[in-house]
Amino acid sequence: MFNHFNLYNTLVDMNIIRSEKNPIIKPEDIESSNPGFKVVGVFNCGVARFKDEVLLLMRVAEEPINDNSKKLLVSWLDVNTGKFVVKEFNKADPSIDISDPRIVSTPEGYYLTSVSHFRIARSKNGIDFEIDKKPAMFPENIYERFGIEDPRITQIADKYYITYSAISDITGITTCLASTTDFIRFTRHGVIFLPNNKDVVIFPEKISGKYYALNRPSSSEFGLKDIWISESPDLVCWGNHSRLMGTRKGCWDGGRIGGGAVPFRVEEGWLEIYHGASRNNRYCLGAVLLDSDIPSKIIARSEKPIIEPRADYELNGYFGNVIFTCGVLYEEGSVKIYYGAADTFIAYAEIKLADIFNHIIWL
Amino acid sequence: MFNHFNLYNTLVDMNIIRSEKNPIIKPEDIESSNPGFKVVGVFNCGVARFKDEVLLLMRVAEEPINDNSKKLLVSWLDVNTGKFVVKEFNKADPSIDISDPRIVSTPEGYYLTSVSHFRIARSKNGIDFEIDKKPAMFPENIYERFGIEDPRITQIADKYYITYSAISDITGITTCLASTTDFIRFTRHGVIFLPNNKDVVIFPEKISGKYYALNRPSSSEFGLKDIWISESPDLVCWGNHSRLMGTRKGCWDGGRIGGGAVPFRVEEGWLEIYHGASRNNRYCLGAVLLDSDIPSKIIARSEKPIIEPRADYELNGYFGNVIFTCGVLYEEGSVKIYYGAADTFIAYAEIKLADIFNHIIWL
Repeated sequence: MFNHFNLYNTLVDMNIIRSEKNPIIKPEDIESSNPGFKVVGVFNCGVARFKDEVLLLMRVAEEPINDNSKKLLVSWLDVNTGKFVVKEFNKADPSIDISDPRIVSTPEGYYLTSVSHFRIARSKNGIDFEIDKKPAMFPENIYERFGIEDPRITQIADKYYITYSAISDITGITTCLASTTDFIRFTRHGVIFLPNNKDVVIFPEKISGKYYALNRPSSSEFGLKDIWISESPDLVCWGNHSRLMGTRKGCWDGGRIGGGAVPFRVEEGWLEIYHGASRNNRYCLGAVLLDSDIPSKIIARSEKPIIEPRADYELNGYFGNVIFTCGVLYEEGSVKIYYGAADTFIAYAEIKLADIFNHIIWL
Repeated sequence: MFNHFNLYNTLVDMNIIRSEKNPIIKPEDIESSNPGFKVVGVFNCGVARFKDEVLLLMRVAEEPINDNSKKLLVSWLDVNTGKFVVKEFNKADPSIDISDPRIVSTPEGYYLTSVSHFRIARSKNGIDFEIDKKPAMFPENIYERFGIEDPRITQIADKYYITYSAISDITGITTCLASTTDFIRFTRHGVIFLPNNKDVVIFPEKISGKYYALNRPSSSEFGLKDIWISESPDLVCWGNHSRLMGTRKGCWDGGRIGGGAVPFRVEEGWLEIYHGASRNNRYCLGAVLLDSDIPSKIIARSEKPIIEPRADYELNGYFGNVIFTCGVLYEEGSVKIYYGAADTFIAYAEIKLADIFNHIIWL
């Protein structure tokens, strides 16, 4: 099963092995959703086994096509017309801040330089993917004006639940819920976490009669970028919120942390692969082990990342120095990590569960 | 019933009548909870009819006693010891910002200049109150390190539910739920709205089988200070969040808005007395009428405030130019408003329902 690895074995972080085919999906593999737009990134993706295939629900980021290097174009959904509006900025305008390549900050507010939707990719072997020509989910309401991002897929019985970030200048960053049984029709269930909240991952089964989700509220006033855990009777209404774990000052996860993959059951509890970023926005992955019956209890946590940006496709891109996961498969003793690299590519790596257990520190 | 009004009838805003006994409760009426502290404010209060009395659950703000005018003392709860820690700042220190009298902003983060708890006041006539000598609820956990604020009381059958803001440097501003049947023992039900969220008011009955609450998430990144509405099966878990109403640029409620009193039923729907602040932090009250069966639908809204700061006790205090309500009684065709004035006093005013209806604008 490891026959497609070798090239990046020099990039070993504690026995994690990157695929030699990385990045396994690139922007040029994706057809744009609209002739006026080009695909600039295909990255953070939820993952599920569906029938005999591995299925990725990928975030595809698009920008308006722009032939004038002195201009900057931004776009958003006009909910009334259902069409995308394009607005032009002069890059030399001193009143706008474009130091972050993802954001245009103006005196009137923020714009995003790209708008994201979701696209499906399918594979028999988990590495070579066929990509749908049309979006699976597309922004369609006031909460999604600036796009939909970072889907996670939780399978509960025959249903697949998708949590995703909805971005809007009017309503901020909320997390919404959708569901599907066939990955053709998707039903939206509205906003499940109020602004600002992202990185929501729902556990794949009830624990003592309740659903659980990790989530990451944020507030720049209080500088919060911690992981919380919440309970629900029905996946739509959430409460009994408690702060689960914090950032660690000066560490690789000292700037912000957030749930990554959907947690999976191992003998010792629930294993969660989360992301942590430094204050310089360098994103790595770590692991945290939660109690089997009381998932608000931490048993063990990574002191060092299990993977950090080293390969060229992780270091350079739309927003470089980023490894970010929305989903893994845990199969045959291995954790198979699909991850967004540099906000541009999808890449793949494997690590043995035993290696993660050698690496996390018991509390 | 209006015999105790007259002095402030010159301060008429659209037929609202302030009590001549205003402010009806002052800091000097309150015994401090601790010999090292003094009471600097008694203001935003929830209100309920309990047995044959009007009962207020009041926010009482205390500061460490400070004999040195060059120093500034801040305090917070050390959860491990259960005691309050006091920290000293030099007012001349150029690295700290004390331009807002409520906050000390330092390079390491924020502190509050006062810590709040809840105290009960009881009255037979709704104007002359007897005040408990001891706190009813006091900060006691990590979410409440910087105090508990702005309680609202919703009576559902024989139980009184209290929503309140819990303030913490670690967990931000969350809204928590407590309940009581006797106003002696209070049971905490944990965090019901994630940071940052305040101004949560729960409707007093189920509507089409669901509980509803207004709430105000905020994010300085996106500049959101709007009112949202959420649903719940059990008062603990909340979802199906939607944005109910926004601020109005350039108006009295152009800076931020938030739920005020617990909504009450009138023939035409649910009436909510909310607060709106301008960008200069001048707080007034307005009214909004929501559909009886679909409370996420707005029927009418104040164009102008129903009351704005004019009296001396509203203009001057710990934080002046503020009228803020957490509760009203709707009795005999009148809305009896208990409100915090200048973050220092509790004041009282009445307005006839008919006058509110003459004032709100149908959409």
